[in-house]
Amino acid sequence: MTAGGDIEALIQMMARLPGFGPRSARRAVLQLVRKRELLLMPLADLMQQVAVTVRECPRCGNICSGPLCDICLDPKRATGELCVVEDVADLWAMERGGAFKGRYHVLGGTLSALDNVGPEELRIPMLITRVEEEEIREVILALNANVEGQTTAHYIADQLEGQVRLTSLAQGVPVGGELDYLDDGTISAALRARREV
Amino acid sequence: MTAGGDIEALIQMMARLPGFGPRSARRAVLQLVRKRELLLMPLADLMQQVAVTVRECPRCGNICSGPLCDICLDPKRATGELCVVEDVADLWAMERGGAFKGRYHVLGGTLSALDNVGPEELRIPMLITRVEEEEIREVILALNANVEGQTTAHYIADQLEGQVRLTSLAQGVPVGGELDYLDDGTISAALRARREV
Repeated sequence: MTAGGDIEALIQMMARLPGFGPRSARRAVLQLVRKRELLLMPLADLMQQVAVTVRECPRCGNICSGPLCDICLDPKRATGELCVVEDVADLWAMERGGAFKGRYHVLGGTLSALDNVGPEELRIPMLITRVEEEEIREVILALNANVEGQTTAHYIADQLEGQVRLTSLAQGVPVGGELDYLDDGTISAALRARREV
Repeated sequence: MTAGGDIEALIQMMARLPGFGPRSARRAVLQLVRKRELLLMPLADLMQQVAVTVRECPRCGNICSGPLCDICLDPKRATGELCVVEDVADLWAMERGGAFKGRYHVLGGTLSALDNVGPEELRIPMLITRVEEEEIREVILALNANVEGQTTAHYIADQLEGQVRLTSLAQGVPVGGELDYLDDGTISAALRARREV
């Protein structure tokens, strides 16, 4: 490569972002260089700023730049409903849906004996404290529908049993989904949870 | 979205990079925030630095951070061969191949009557000056094999006729290419340019 040291280093670092490889990173860097005033400079400034200000919300684990995240600060979201998710990406996915009006609790992963991840590593004690202190009426376990997610959900359910209403996301056919392309497990789950029309 | 002003702004700006959409930009920003020390801070610094130092090589049009680009500065590449490409991405593609040992001339686009791009907008006068001044023996027209590229190649060939040896890249079957997946034009070109085994 013949792009000069800094530019080559920038390409290699961009290539480490998810969704980028060496070739697409090169294309992105060329675009950045071509739009230096419009894209490269503001992006560099914004990254500097985020690098300084970004932190974990001490209450829910969302990322934020203030003392608490926007959701924890919003008084309208003190609905007594707490949605437990694995990570911030899942929180964002829930927010995209726009159907949930309460607050979140980000675990930061799932329980894993193999990787030595116990409840203390996962903000689970903090969850139990919050349920007691914030007048939570319902905890919605929005964990991924895989083995790790469901193991973690079971553990949390055991801990909170009797203190609060515990629910989890419904399983079934995705909106717009075609039966022919669904796996057998999803079809069985949708059948078991069938509803009156 | 609920990621706070700066982070949301960063996502929106990352989404403007080629190869990124809103969703992949969000994933990339999460990754950046998670690896603040290892990825976000060095990337922000590097972008700042590139934004300050990057410029167009005044001789060939490559991007560089010094007075001339690495290729123009390298005395070993003064081979008397000059490879004409449309843009820096094409220069990088040629360098990946590693077969060319001479220097480049980046036009910065192709001639286009519709978009009012004439020879003066394209560093073509500079190319003619370089051919005279740098003892160029051969100009390789490595322009894209589409109408705009070939029109530009014809124009340059007209300008330089008689002064220098003019060549263009061979057309034919790509290495590893399967005939069944090639367009008719490529197969015809490969047949016309067939060689003795």
